[in-house]
Amino acid sequence: MREDPAATSKLIVALTYPGIHAVWVYRLCHKLWVTNLALRPLARVLSQIARFFTGVEIHPGAVIGRRFFIDHGMGVVIGETAEIGQDVLMYHQVTLGGRSRGRFKRHPTIGDNVLLGAGAKIIGPVTIGAGTKVGANALVVTDVPPNSIVTGIQANTKPGDIIA
Amino acid sequence: MREDPAATSKLIVALTYPGIHAVWVYRLCHKLWVTNLALRPLARVLSQIARFFTGVEIHPGAVIGRRFFIDHGMGVVIGETAEIGQDVLMYHQVTLGGRSRGRFKRHPTIGDNVLLGAGAKIIGPVTIGAGTKVGANALVVTDVPPNSIVTGIQANTKPGDIIA
Amino acid sequence: MREDPAATSKLIVALTYPGIHAVWVYRLCHKLWVTNLALRPLARVLSQIARFFTGVEIHPGAVIGRRFFIDHGMGVVIGETAEIGQDVLMYHQVTLGGRSRGRFKRHPTIGDNVLLGAGAKIIGPVTIGAGTKVGANALVVTDVPPNSIVTGIQANTKPGDIIA
Repeated sequence: MREDPAATSKLIVALTYPGIHAVWVYRLCHKLWVTNLALRPLARVLSQIARFFTGVEIHPGAVIGRRFFIDHGMGVVIGETAEIGQDVLMYHQVTLGGRSRGRFKRHPTIGDNVLLGAGAKIIGPVTIGAGTKVGANALVVTDVPPNSIVTGIQANTKPGDIIA
Repeated sequence: MREDPAATSKLIVALTYPGIHAVWVYRLCHKLWVTNLALRPLARVLSQIARFFTGVEIHPGAVIGRRFFIDHGMGVVIGETAEIGQDVLMYHQVTLGGRSRGRFKRHPTIGDNVLLGAGAKIIGPVTIGAGTKVGANALVVTDVPPNSIVTGIQANTKPGDIIA
Repeated sequence: MREDPAATSKLIVALTYPGIHAVWVYRLCHKLWVTNLALRPLARVLSQIARFFTGVEIHPGAVIGRRFFIDHGMGVVIGETAEIGQDVLMYHQVTLGGRSRGRFKRHPTIGDNVLLGAGAKIIGPVTIGAGTKVGANALVVTDVPPNSIVTGIQANTKPGDIIA
């Protein structure tokens, strides 16, 4: 709520923030995932049910720190070997994706206090340093040092006739 | 219907265009929002129900002109202080987003007759002039004059062996 | 399953891969579409029901080859005149979109064994040659020869103070 001026009461937040519901279900699924190999299929099914209701897809194997907040959330995909620190803020359509195949570490590691803007794609086992802000639609496939500002490439504008 | 050659009858449009349903619910939510402060929580909840059914998230506080049409719609996010003119056409995954925090104007203003392509992100209190066309995946964070052509940056192609 | 190390059993795949369900429904809708003009409205409605359950929107008129696989899937849009070869792998938020209007061919043609990364937008009646790999968030509006590597433009990083 501290982060979003449109959040005006606790009840409204609880009712209207699907990103929060998705993280709640993830916490349960991750517990199933790490507790018992036999419960992993159940964790996968629960996480897909959460995807249906929230538009957010978090693999139960991902490791996510405290106070993780997803705003809007539609289209978020977080892969199996992704690691996310504490106090991370993520917008809709962010992907923490893999490039290679195999059962090793293939998804990103996100430091504490990182902000990931809408549509950002972080691909491969790269590290985003703590305190970094990643802008909307940014594509990141290499490591980023802490406290960086990462900005997607702005579109080209060919101005029209202002008189018209 | 005039805009989309795949729309072949009024009934099909009414049944199969979730972007239209999302705008219908927004019109109701916005009326609740501006009529009575006490109805704002209800407006927020209704807009989240519309998001669940349509994949389109429009904050009830946004101000949107006539004949606004969202095609496909999945992943659209329109922020609280966004303003949209008349006859705007928007595709899926467009975000009219905020960069700063606070209760002031922090989302874009879109002029009349603007087209916003799939995945375009318009971020901050910028103005997109009337008649402008914004292409797919374009990132826009500054003002754009009227009747402009705004194009996202094309990907790099490293050609393979055509013989292979 | 061969493609994804997180797919650990056939049952889990059947239960938790909405992209697979979307393609199943598309196969049925396409059959209705090509069999009888009178069934086309039904095909449109069924494909919208599939969109609601899977987040994947495939127009029933699209022509799609064997072993087409959509991973994650949320936000995928495939237009009416798109053509997709065999063994194509597509991630979430890919759009095969049109630029012009009219009832002619206006969507892309995708060759065999192409990979389309998350958020890629292929726009217009362009051809992506067989064996090409298209990276995340890539924007493609021109033809691409076979076996190419197409990469979206990486974001700019302004490093922060690593000491801080």
